[in-house]
Amino acid sequence: MKKVFDVLLARNEFKAEAFIKELDGKKPLFVCTIATTETAKIQGISAAGKYPEFTDYTPPADAELLLLGKCKCINGVPVTPDGIPTPALITMSALRLADIPVLVASGGLKVHPQIPFLDLGGNPGKDIRTGRAVDNVEEVIQRATLAGEHLAKTADYLVIGESIPGGTTTALGVLSAMGVNAVEKVSSSMPDNPHGLKTEAVKAGLAASGESFGTLSKNPIKAISCVGDPMMPAFAGLVMGAAAQVPVLMAGGTQMSAVLAVINALNSDVLCNVAIGTTRWVISDRSSDLRGIVAQIFDVPILAADLDFASSRFSGLQAYEKGVVKEGVGAGGAAIAAMAKVGGAVTKDMLLKEIERNYALLMGTK
Amino acid sequence: MKKVFDVLLARNEFKAEAFIKELDGKKPLFVCTIATTETAKIQGISAAGKYPEFTDYTPPADAELLLLGKCKCINGVPVTPDGIPTPALITMSALRLADIPVLVASGGLKVHPQIPFLDLGGNPGKDIRTGRAVDNVEEVIQRATLAGEHLAKTADYLVIGESIPGGTTTALGVLSAMGVNAVEKVSSSMPDNPHGLKTEAVKAGLAASGESFGTLSKNPIKAISCVGDPMMPAFAGLVMGAAAQVPVLMAGGTQMSAVLAVINALNSDVLCNVAIGTTRWVISDRSSDLRGIVAQIFDVPILAADLDFASSRFSGLQAYEKGVVKEGVGAGGAAIAAMAKVGGAVTKDMLLKEIERNYALLMGTK
Repeated sequence: MKKVFDVLLARNEFKAEAFIKELDGKKPLFVCTIATTETAKIQGISAAGKYPEFTDYTPPADAELLLLGKCKCINGVPVTPDGIPTPALITMSALRLADIPVLVASGGLKVHPQIPFLDLGGNPGKDIRTGRAVDNVEEVIQRATLAGEHLAKTADYLVIGESIPGGTTTALGVLSAMGVNAVEKVSSSMPDNPHGLKTEAVKAGLAASGESFGTLSKNPIKAISCVGDPMMPAFAGLVMGAAAQVPVLMAGGTQMSAVLAVINALNSDVLCNVAIGTTRWVISDRSSDLRGIVAQIFDVPILAADLDFASSRFSGLQAYEKGVVKEGVGAGGAAIAAMAKVGGAVTKDMLLKEIERNYALLMGTK
Repeated sequence: MKKVFDVLLARNEFKAEAFIKELDGKKPLFVCTIATTETAKIQGISAAGKYPEFTDYTPPADAELLLLGKCKCINGVPVTPDGIPTPALITMSALRLADIPVLVASGGLKVHPQIPFLDLGGNPGKDIRTGRAVDNVEEVIQRATLAGEHLAKTADYLVIGESIPGGTTTALGVLSAMGVNAVEKVSSSMPDNPHGLKTEAVKAGLAASGESFGTLSKNPIKAISCVGDPMMPAFAGLVMGAAAQVPVLMAGGTQMSAVLAVINALNSDVLCNVAIGTTRWVISDRSSDLRGIVAQIFDVPILAADLDFASSRFSGLQAYEKGVVKEGVGAGGAAIAAMAKVGGAVTKDMLLKEIERNYALLMGTK
């Protein structure tokens, strides 16, 4: 696969290359959109927290890590049940290495982070099996759009990431409601992707809301309201507000395809200014298919940070090569932005060194 | 008084001229810090609301006006008891004319604005006569400092304004606690400055907190906690975080001197990068003395937008020439930034035309 800097051109190579070259030497603003949903507490759905109940703390803890270099609302950092640390560690390392400013935006949280955050008027999400997963969707989209319009004037481009445990299940929900076939195509933070559980939850949510596959293809707001999560309206609004003025890198894995479907239905014009930025782990994952989902929606390019932790001296980082975590908190997009900001002077090896340094500091290892 | 663009060099002419010239053609970010205090409800203290109880709505309504061009949490716009509109009308007109991005930051509110806003972890303020006016001061300062550090990377300089009814009384409180003589020197939104009421409230607050004039000169956090307001820690933190990297224009009237005293006690180094930006109405006000207060604290320059509404076709704007309102919501600083951004191509006459246009739209007049 062709590379520019240590960034793989993973889809629509021509546009992908033009996009990454446009970012060369430019100054980004990184926005981390955080939210929570009860969907994450379905047993076996998410590894973004040691126990299901911990998933309420993962997004605020991730946000604290980005801004403070440590968490405040929990001890240590968010880990999977196997003790593998949050991808926010990658994001934080990349942003600090390239001196990229960060803003945290809340789509709706159970636990507030102990740092400054942009309140967009949303509430925590309910279990999608209720069929009434998110309220206030339209208002949050409007407020986030307004925020995106103003933030676009403060940077050459925006990189927008997310932290919401359970987010691939809600992504499958919205994609299904909108008629995009994503069954067994969404990614997972676990090495064994629990596709069955996700499909079951989405089926229950669609049934409870009286909808079925594709019935909401023209109504993304209702799709989110029924079977989505509160990260989505915040993220989609930010993109729509900003991408009318500057390039926007949507930083994430398969969750981005659900946001893409929402934007495509509301204001597809802005998508000519949008790319998805992810990690090599998502692109090379055989249990999911980001490109296959995107192909059904809109022809945006996909860039993937060519991160490789195989040679890491920490088993907790080597685990990323075995398909654990893969992406999240805009890790891939932040890595791409860090490399592009300095014209490639930040390499994947330098990034790994910085990530290892922070890993040692935060995990208390040597 | 010497002018650069339509900006008066109102104090420390040499530094003031250097400061405004440094802003020439640069891209600012405007941050509006909003908060509420029960102090505003003391009968006769504030004109920032038609009735004392309305003052809870004035800051969120001002913030909505800046971002939406209209208010959502109230009908119309905030007005004085005589129907004179909020200075946010000036701020909004200036920011739109020069396409300056806005971010709203909350120091602590009773009513949330229906727009995106940065939550800094503060709570609404209590009546200073309790002697326990603001809680969480240190934490809010820390969070705001962090926000200021990141926002400084998104702009060439910051303009920070405020909206908090009752703010000159709490300013007198903090200045007095810190040993700065401001009795009969703080400004007022009313034509007849109620100095007696303010002095009385501060005296009661200091007594209730067991403090007196100057006893907290080295403890600005306690001074705010006892007799300040929740705008102050948010504002001071934003300045301290940002001014370490970029110039900061503190946009306001005599309230700025209290924030200046707080910063001077916590981190005076950053003040070499700071100026106060206000209006001609504050500078020429005979019932207050911003320069006399600042002279006791730190030698920062003062810039004043040379606004003149005498020739306005609206009596509601002409009233500004009679000493009503004078300043607020960073009106003076926003006007200065609008002029500086385009190298003086925005003049005071153009500003007045734009303000009149918005006045007519919002007040339903022709």
